[in-house]
Amino acid sequence: MTKNSVTKNDLVLKKPLRCIVKLGGAAITVKNEMEKLNEQILQSVSSQLRQAMIEEKMAGEKVRGMDWSRRIGKTGVSDVDDFKEGSADLQFDPFIVVHGAGSFGHFQASKSGIHRGGLHKPLAKAGFVATRISVTSLNLEIVRALAREGIPTVGMSPFACGWSTCKRNIAFADLSQLKETLNAEFIPVLHGDAVFDRLQDCSILSGDVIIRHLAELLKPDYVIFLTDVFGVYDRPPTNPDAVLLKEIDVDETGNWSVVKPNLLDMNKHGTVEIRVSAHDTTGGMETKIMEAACIAKLGIDVYITKAGTCHSLRVLKGEINGNIPDDWLGTAIRSSKKSK
Amino acid sequence: MTKNSVTKNDLVLKKPLRCIVKLGGAAITVKNEMEKLNEQILQSVSSQLRQAMIEEKMAGEKVRGMDWSRRIGKTGVSDVDDFKEGSADLQFDPFIVVHGAGSFGHFQASKSGIHRGGLHKPLAKAGFVATRISVTSLNLEIVRALAREGIPTVGMSPFACGWSTCKRNIAFADLSQLKETLNAEFIPVLHGDAVFDRLQDCSILSGDVIIRHLAELLKPDYVIFLTDVFGVYDRPPTNPDAVLLKEIDVDETGNWSVVKPNLLDMNKHGTVEIRVSAHDTTGGMETKIMEAACIAKLGIDVYITKAGTCHSLRVLKGEINGNIPDDWLGTAIRSSKKSK
Repeated sequence: MTKNSVTKNDLVLKKPLRCIVKLGGAAITVKNEMEKLNEQILQSVSSQLRQAMIEEKMAGEKVRGMDWSRRIGKTGVSDVDDFKEGSADLQFDPFIVVHGAGSFGHFQASKSGIHRGGLHKPLAKAGFVATRISVTSLNLEIVRALAREGIPTVGMSPFACGWSTCKRNIAFADLSQLKETLNAEFIPVLHGDAVFDRLQDCSILSGDVIIRHLAELLKPDYVIFLTDVFGVYDRPPTNPDAVLLKEIDVDETGNWSVVKPNLLDMNKHGTVEIRVSAHDTTGGMETKIMEAACIAKLGIDVYITKAGTCHSLRVLKGEINGNIPDDWLGTAIRSSKKSK
Repeated sequence: MTKNSVTKNDLVLKKPLRCIVKLGGAAITVKNEMEKLNEQILQSVSSQLRQAMIEEKMAGEKVRGMDWSRRIGKTGVSDVDDFKEGSADLQFDPFIVVHGAGSFGHFQASKSGIHRGGLHKPLAKAGFVATRISVTSLNLEIVRALAREGIPTVGMSPFACGWSTCKRNIAFADLSQLKETLNAEFIPVLHGDAVFDRLQDCSILSGDVIIRHLAELLKPDYVIFLTDVFGVYDRPPTNPDAVLLKEIDVDETGNWSVVKPNLLDMNKHGTVEIRVSAHDTTGGMETKIMEAACIAKLGIDVYITKAGTCHSLRVLKGEINGNIPDDWLGTAIRSSKKSK
């Protein structure tokens, strides 16, 4: 009954991890409307993930849904009859999905202030429960949407996995079950969650922090952030003069500079006012760029683009590498060492 | 970033565990109707758990709901405004809820045969995904129902916790997060789940097996099974001649005998045809009695009764111990050593 923890933690992935995909809360939920999915974007992202991650020889196979549960307002229970003995299994390259919270969890977390800890207070304790209910509801919806596209997804809540923070950074995260899940050819779906914290009893572990941690330890080929705008701009993207920054280089110390477009006539790095999305509950854009830079520093390319567009499909398929094509809209953040 | 696993596993509970409560699938869902909650029973059980487990000094406190999410067909979002600074926190004795699947998960698991393993087959792989979607949906509903009664519940899926089986028995289950959760004064809500299996790649870990394992390691004062009949009968409870077995003794070797009523004029032990409920997807009644006997053998009293009745409230409150009152309907399964 006891665990040989060292052996399990040392577990290696059978196949290299192709990528980690962040589904931004701003893309998959409707901002400003509490706990409302953006079903159209979610369906589109799920379909693109299927097209991009399926092994080439499987491209012609029929979608056979794996969500056999009832759905409110929908007819038909399941695609179970599609599974006949001997039919081919869809083969996916290993990838991990991490999603944000968007309009799920935000209300509960901000009302109760659980990012500051304080579980001895009734409001924080209730907020911890309420936040987890909200974010796990969203996780279930995303697992279901991906499963309907034939992607063998399993939800894994960081809280249940026993992960904990030390002031928003990961203090402890056992990856053994995640690795076993990938080795069994399932796709794990993780999310930003309320967790225990070593210094302040509880906190919010954001999806972005999870991704940085997983990228460090599992070394994916690339990391993709799908959001509701095309990438990082030199000023708020709602501003008609905003310029999309298409390539950002990160040096070994984590400093970053814009390579493309040439910003000679614009604000220089350091005064660039960076925006990806206004709807960000866990730290704002500065944090987001810093997380991306930390990943790029490891030699792992990071791409940010708009969910559900031809640009997201191309980057998911791995077509955007080396030189960034002129007709691709998005931001690539890469190690300067690598791009030289 | 690494874990001192020994230290974490050695974590002790700050307060002794009062009980483990099984919410039987047959009680909290509508049999024969796929994925339908028995909302009335679930609400009643939640309210009884609140009344029974709350510390006495808190009995007069108002119920302040912790489910602040939207509910289909219901008005109002939240009880968040009930939480004012300085208001008293409800104090609960530590307990654990484990629920079965009932009409959730059953269809998906039986269609795909995942209790027999075989993840290399597309049907089993899809069934694993579909089963987890269904049982985690139910878990979310139960967490929410309990949270609405002011019980600070957190859902913990055995799969996400990294628990695994070896042919239906638990092969590995790290309890550190569960213990931390109890120590932080939350109530964990676990469930029967599809998990990885050491011998046959995957299996179903039933709620009953989880309970036996937790009882062995965490030594609760008592264990309660809430189901849709009053307890164990000498023949199918639908039979008008069925007699409720009120006390069963278990000896050190795990053999059990009926103490009350006196079965001299009835079928003797060994020929007694035992039934609790016909709606049992994970092993039938024989398994259930054996699990209860295994727990009782440890000196932990086990009670089986009907959910949402005055009998379930009494046993939850801890009123049924020593001699079983004549007006209590249920089955007590206890160590013969202890009852002497």
